Amino acid sequence: MAPTIGVFDSGFGGLTVLRALVERFPHARFAFLGDTARLPYGSKSRRTIARYAAQSAQFLVNEQGAEFLVIACNTASALALDAIQDAVSVPVLGVIEPGAAAARAASRTGDVLVVATEATVHSRAYTAACQAHGLRVLEKACPLLVPLVEEGWTDHPVTAEVIEIYLNELRAEAESRGMNPDTLVLGCTHYPLLRPLFERVVRPGAKVIDSAESVAQAAVQLLNGSASPAATGNAPETEVRCFATDSVEKFERLGSRFLGRPVGHVELIDLGG
Amino acid sequence: MAPTIGVFDSGFGGLTVLRALVERFPHARFAFLGDTARLPYGSKSRRTIARYAAQSAQFLVNEQGAEFLVIACNTASALALDAIQDAVSVPVLGVIEPGAAAARAASRTGDVLVVATEATVHSRAYTAACQAHGLRVLEKACPLLVPLVEEGWTDHPVTAEVIEIYLNELRAEAESRGMNPDTLVLGCTHYPLLRPLFERVVRPGAKVIDSAESVAQAAVQLLNGSASPAATGNAPETEVRCFATDSVEKFERLGSRFLGRPVGHVELIDLGG
Repeated sequence: MAPTIGVFDSGFGGLTVLRALVERFPHARFAFLGDTARLPYGSKSRRTIARYAAQSAQFLVNEQGAEFLVIACNTASALALDAIQDAVSVPVLGVIEPGAAAARAASRTGDVLVVATEATVHSRAYTAACQAHGLRVLEKACPLLVPLVEEGWTDHPVTAEVIEIYLNELRAEAESRGMNPDTLVLGCTHYPLLRPLFERVVRPGAKVIDSAESVAQAAVQLLNGSASPAATGNAPETEVRCFATDSVEKFERLGSRFLGRPVGHVELIDLGG
Repeated sequence: MAPTIGVFDSGFGGLTVLRALVERFPHARFAFLGDTARLPYGSKSRRTIARYAAQSAQFLVNEQGAEFLVIACNTASALALDAIQDAVSVPVLGVIEPGAAAARAASRTGDVLVVATEATVHSRAYTAACQAHGLRVLEKACPLLVPLVEEGWTDHPVTAEVIEIYLNELRAEAESRGMNPDTLVLGCTHYPLLRPLFERVVRPGAKVIDSAESVAQAAVQLLNGSASPAATGNAPETEVRCFATDSVEKFERLGSRFLGRPVGHVELIDLGG
């Protein structure tokens, strides 16, 4: 029996996580909620984020029948995973721990770099998760990257230059601390669209961890034991319903780039506030 | 008698407007509210923006005693000026009309370009206001500029390149319509910090209109008749209280760049939702 999987993000960036999940669970039902009326969570306080995320999780479980939740939002995973787990009675998987576990599996030197939004970095959640795996870690906020992705400049010289500036600053800081990083975690769901640019800029042999792929793989292990991903990808019977709290037009216009296929009609809901 | 002036923005960008007002009303009391918990208004719907802006205006009038409101937020001025005027009983000045009037005064050819956020452009409020002054106008959304300012890259080669790309696209579109623009309106309160870069990129002789300066000048005319700006600027007796609905840390950290002096302690308030 395929489960109903709820996927939550503050915006539509989490559609990169939904895409990775659909590839692995082609027969599941999915309900995706983007809390677009209240984005970006990245600039808000822990208290506010926890309240918004709990309301959103309850919508997916109580009104959409989700039996399993994936929090496809690094900020909410970093700051509000406990609050979400308290708010609903189904299993909840955040996006931080799978990224840290994938970094542990990928790194030989044990030194890892993380790029993310300001709030995710400020929370130090990746640092805590990576340290729990015995890694040394250095994080950097890259606030220009989400707007560059949303502008559609995913293969633009300006974006390549911005990524190079950010990574140079990050590597210089790592070197000044005596680190020898060989793994870079993309700790924001918008960043998978920049993966080719990141892979061009990292040093030869360095590995780029895409947290969307990591959390989808963790969902497979949690739900199926050791089920292998479906070979066919987006099977026609996959049922995906998308909800947003505002800005349906932008969600529909930009979402397909993230999901890798048309998002179709996005249903507008009101969570209050 | 100096009035109590309320200044409202979705974030702290409107501190550029407050700065221009403080220079002109050095003896006034100011209450500034940044609705940072719910920013950016730029990606939200008219309905949502109207509700948020009305609540914010009521706080300034009912709880801070503002006798006059300046809406230092292009998005709220574009989409919610009527809703704000309905919500309070004091005079309300938006930022769109003064910018359009200043463009009319500046332009010889009658053709004007406007750069702003996506929602401001989408509202077509500048187009309507400029056309009412007999101008031809072309608007362009520049969604990367606010994040670049907030990253502190106000004099950075990447920002100069982004501005050049945006302006080249805008001028090409204007030329294809047979326009001969000689005036550029900066239709976002973050953009005054980029004014030197814009002035470097516009054509020789073209004028750059800073909407923060324009709305402050309009406030002088409305409140003082024809009072001239105080020559001394920030007099020590100017009383400025800043309020925010969230992210006080970021407001305090970045705000001084916009205000041109330390913002001091920012008081956290809760408007609900």
